[in-house]
Amino acid sequence: MSNISYVNGKYLSNNDAVISINDRSVYFADAVYEVIGIHNKKILLWDEHLERLNNSLSALSIKLPVSTNVLLILTKQLIKKNRIFEGLLYMHISRGIAPRKHIYKDSILPSLFMTISRVQFNMKKPVSIITSADIRWKRCDIKSVSLLPNILLKNKAHKKSAEECWFFDQEGFITEGTTSNAWIVKDSIIYTTPLSNEVLPGVTRSLVHKIALENNFVVKEKKFKIKDVEEADEAFLTNTSALVLPINKINNVTICNSHNTEKISYKLQKLVLEKLTRGSK
Amino acid sequence: MSNISYVNGKYLSNNDAVISINDRSVYFADAVYEVIGIHNKKILLWDEHLERLNNSLSALSIKLPVSTNVLLILTKQLIKKNRIFEGLLYMHISRGIAPRKHIYKDSILPSLFMTISRVQFNMKKPVSIITSADIRWKRCDIKSVSLLPNILLKNKAHKKSAEECWFFDQEGFITEGTTSNAWIVKDSIIYTTPLSNEVLPGVTRSLVHKIALENNFVVKEKKFKIKDVEEADEAFLTNTSALVLPINKINNVTICNSHNTEKISYKLQKLVLEKLTRGSK
Repeated sequence: MSNISYVNGKYLSNNDAVISINDRSVYFADAVYEVIGIHNKKILLWDEHLERLNNSLSALSIKLPVSTNVLLILTKQLIKKNRIFEGLLYMHISRGIAPRKHIYKDSILPSLFMTISRVQFNMKKPVSIITSADIRWKRCDIKSVSLLPNILLKNKAHKKSAEECWFFDQEGFITEGTTSNAWIVKDSIIYTTPLSNEVLPGVTRSLVHKIALENNFVVKEKKFKIKDVEEADEAFLTNTSALVLPINKINNVTICNSHNTEKISYKLQKLVLEKLTRGSK
Repeated sequence: MSNISYVNGKYLSNNDAVISINDRSVYFADAVYEVIGIHNKKILLWDEHLERLNNSLSALSIKLPVSTNVLLILTKQLIKKNRIFEGLLYMHISRGIAPRKHIYKDSILPSLFMTISRVQFNMKKPVSIITSADIRWKRCDIKSVSLLPNILLKNKAHKKSAEECWFFDQEGFITEGTTSNAWIVKDSIIYTTPLSNEVLPGVTRSLVHKIALENNFVVKEKKFKIKDVEEADEAFLTNTSALVLPINKINNVTICNSHNTEKISYKLQKLVLEKLTRGSK
């Protein structure tokens, strides 16, 4: 059981890990986060996560409370203390602690906490998904904890025995999932939704894109609709915990895979798993 | 200095008031809140706030962790312990505490905490406001802590020496402010934006509506745009802390009030203040 967390300078049992009720995470969702893979006690894609973290912090004018070097040391210590071989690190930075007022002072000191959970990175079976109108705010490119719509739709999916819910915008184009980026394959071409204010620049999304190109696949960043998913040869989602997860049904419509050839999503799943488990910080 | 807070069964110094980092408020903004006025040690509009709280909880399938009778007793004790004559009570209910997973169990026990701050309810001078595209999520009728866009725009307003920012939807219609409902007066008719998924059913909004009708004003719930505000005789905002707050400028355009007659917003300000300070629980 992983049970040591880091909270503002202290390593604490997760059960004793507390923050002030006046932390602005609590009152206003005024915080950002990252979820980072750990394999063989090493941190996966640290630089890529840090770059995105810095972009999120910068968009909200929140400062990283420690240097990136110190952050790396703290993270490595946390992995060591938890004796984690394979897992997920959750890193949370809020604007800080102050009596509840919308207006914040520039002098406020940001809060940082981190937790770790065990997971296994492995090949995963296809899952089904549902869809919903995108009711989220318009800056989903910032990885903030403003996640209530994601919670509502992820739980709705779960109640319908689906793994995930993909959002579609007012014109019917898929933006992304509650916890994933969206992909389809049609006629051997791989499509993913282009980055915008409504799409998180997924670290795994970027990695899969790169690996696909390295392996001579054609990848296009192009918008697609539910109908395109239904008519695709394959669909899959990407995120830090599942890596590449094939999808076999969308709103109970079976995605008609070609059965004669090895699926591209399965190939990508293997390639990503191999690549990640080789090189890490 | 008010410094006693209530947190899950305990009255604590606000400095010592903490919650688990695993509270779903922190990870997911999976929580609702109310801000309730206190005058002469009495709670203002308790029933109205409780009704809205229950609506918010119900929309998110969160249960009130105590009965409403117990909640009233806890609230009265908190007011007494803080020796508050006039102030604001902040009440926060989250889905509860659990290791970070989007999927929640129905058995999760909700968290409740409350804090109190001192304020004065009194006549206030006119303020200026700015406007912004409504970038918030599509369920602003739920009083959730998913408030990051409100924070960003309220602080943008503050940096421009304005008190508030009103949002406008894709068609240019004002929805509401970051912390207020929106009103204008034109040719002695009072207009406020109709309730929808993008507008919080303000307790003060409802009270002002009622008082206006009791005092023989004509009130219409009708959408309006920035241009309508610019061309209005008066504009004002309502919320629990300011009650009725006249607005004299929108995006630096002066709202051209008639100077010959007493302003309707000032009359309403007086009437609301009188009514509230008479009857309370």
